[in-house]
Amino acid sequence: MYLSPGARLAIYAEGEFGKGRSKTAEGVIRYAKNPVAAVIDSTCAGKSIKQAVGIDCPAPIVSSLSQALAYKPDAFLLGTAWSGGKLPEAWRSDIKDAIRQGMDIVNGLHDMLCDDEEIAQLAAKHNCQLLDVRRAPNHLPVGEGLARNVEAFTVLTVGSDCSVGKMTTSLELIAEAERRGKKAAFVATGQTGIMIAGGKGIAIDRVIGDFMAGATEQMVLEAAPGNDFVFVEGQGSLAHPSFSGVTLALMHGSCAKAMILCHKAIRKCINALPDFPQPDLKMMVEVSETMAQLVAPSKVVAVAVNTVGMDDETAHNAVAQAAQRTGLPACDPVRFGAKPLFDAIAAYQETLSKTPVG
Amino acid sequence: MYLSPGARLAIYAEGEFGKGRSKTAEGVIRYAKNPVAAVIDSTCAGKSIKQAVGIDCPAPIVSSLSQALAYKPDAFLLGTAWSGGKLPEAWRSDIKDAIRQGMDIVNGLHDMLCDDEEIAQLAAKHNCQLLDVRRAPNHLPVGEGLARNVEAFTVLTVGSDCSVGKMTTSLELIAEAERRGKKAAFVATGQTGIMIAGGKGIAIDRVIGDFMAGATEQMVLEAAPGNDFVFVEGQGSLAHPSFSGVTLALMHGSCAKAMILCHKAIRKCINALPDFPQPDLKMMVEVSETMAQLVAPSKVVAVAVNTVGMDDETAHNAVAQAAQRTGLPACDPVRFGAKPLFDAIAAYQETLSKTPVG
Repeated sequence: MYLSPGARLAIYAEGEFGKGRSKTAEGVIRYAKNPVAAVIDSTCAGKSIKQAVGIDCPAPIVSSLSQALAYKPDAFLLGTAWSGGKLPEAWRSDIKDAIRQGMDIVNGLHDMLCDDEEIAQLAAKHNCQLLDVRRAPNHLPVGEGLARNVEAFTVLTVGSDCSVGKMTTSLELIAEAERRGKKAAFVATGQTGIMIAGGKGIAIDRVIGDFMAGATEQMVLEAAPGNDFVFVEGQGSLAHPSFSGVTLALMHGSCAKAMILCHKAIRKCINALPDFPQPDLKMMVEVSETMAQLVAPSKVVAVAVNTVGMDDETAHNAVAQAAQRTGLPACDPVRFGAKPLFDAIAAYQETLSKTPVG
Repeated sequence: MYLSPGARLAIYAEGEFGKGRSKTAEGVIRYAKNPVAAVIDSTCAGKSIKQAVGIDCPAPIVSSLSQALAYKPDAFLLGTAWSGGKLPEAWRSDIKDAIRQGMDIVNGLHDMLCDDEEIAQLAAKHNCQLLDVRRAPNHLPVGEGLARNVEAFTVLTVGSDCSVGKMTTSLELIAEAERRGKKAAFVATGQTGIMIAGGKGIAIDRVIGDFMAGATEQMVLEAAPGNDFVFVEGQGSLAHPSFSGVTLALMHGSCAKAMILCHKAIRKCINALPDFPQPDLKMMVEVSETMAQLVAPSKVVAVAVNTVGMDDETAHNAVAQAAQRTGLPACDPVRFGAKPLFDAIAAYQETLSKTPVG
């Protein structure tokens, strides 16, 4: 059981909103069906959400939970995530206050609130749900490469790094598919994607190593029937020292027929690891195709360039540079629309359908 | 706490000994310090261990736990492992009988005996240890690519498939290093390796995705000081549809300076996945080096060819074929000795030491 789609969210991003670590908050505001009651961050209270993170949303930013109560939230959603996913001690008292107000808690951290005795007891007393969206199911299969046989056209977002817009690109492509009258499913593989998908999905980075590909495969096999497209949210990067294993498991579990390479143009080094420079995009295209091919052939058909933090001219240049370096169509699907990316997918699908098998 | 080194093992491999799924039993018999009291498998009772699996070991194969008791075992070790690692219901009564006899239980499956209420209660009553060696520690770090800076020369075994001899190759290389007067550490990353290492190590395939590289890195950083070599036991294969993510995390977490490619010559397809043919060895050398390079440069310096199930002539041919295909030294370290593999490592280490940095 997740929240009802009408449940109003108080999004908690204390000290972090719009500062590069509130991607969960931003993703939920941009894409989730649940209405936003308020964002809580005392360091940017009074600003509009548009000013803080560039997303059109009428909800206010307030400085505390007690101020947020005026906007009648039903649920308290932890909107900040970081590498390692630990629960900061400073959040505890706000979480407990939210529970005392009868709010359900939506948590995407590795630390599970249901396993926290104090919080679990308080939630039981106040009859609140603790929704640990990153908790993986207990019984997952081992992957068998079965997703390569689905009829739907499967597309995986891969990246030059983590936090570059893989989920966002997948969701923008689904919207574009639907504009074209196609049926498209979203396979959520991370905490924010699961919140947006109404609780559906599995956080692959939380799954035990042996079952990561199997969990991905299971989701693709479930999502494919009746859909023209399945968009699988990618995670991490093959070049990321911390998370590359998760990325490869998603690749081999999904057996995606096409990939979109996602890249954040402003970044110079791997996120949070200043000793590791950003990988070259052309090389990422090559290794992505090489690694996919070990289980099922796939092609990077376009580059999604995240131009956050750039003015329009710089953004255009960054997109042009990515296109030139890779020889592929490139676009920022948020700033300029996902049409060129979807066109590239459709064109490749067309090519494949004309290629004799075997 | 693991077993004391003198604890005598009853190795349980009912129905499976020497039939391709008893690699835990065989690894423990070949390499663990603990003396073997008996192997239990009613389907080959009466044979010698040499006849059943080709390992010199004087312990008998008996048909039941009650027969094994004559050989005074202190611990009952589950010697069969398979994909998915579930506890077969048929084993329960034997495990419970072993506990009633006061034996500690050594378990390498994904299913944890400590979490099994019935077995845990019985073990408490009889004051027996339940050693779930695959259980991962609770607090693991996220990888940061730090292992690339250790002074010891780090060597990772990679493979064309799972169950091809990566642990065995690492252990044979350690023995060879010690024969040459070098100090070498073993980083155990799977259940059998941990049993051999006296309970030390982390089963990376059991670790949550986000922490696999970090767990590997932590073990390498701990093992390196004071050693000339660190041999990291590899898992799975970059080409394995089920487990490739674990393999890549080990690669990027260990930042090994050299790799040995392990291959089982008799195999035609990926283990347990008949629709996936064995990958080409030359290609595996290339993708291994390409993928390692994304975090830290590394080179495949030799091929360890597992020739189990072949006569000597066929084995020689298989080794020659692997050498020819890859252009690298090749050897079966069990059948013919690890010397050529170690020579290749030493030669590459020498080359690196003469290469100016930067």
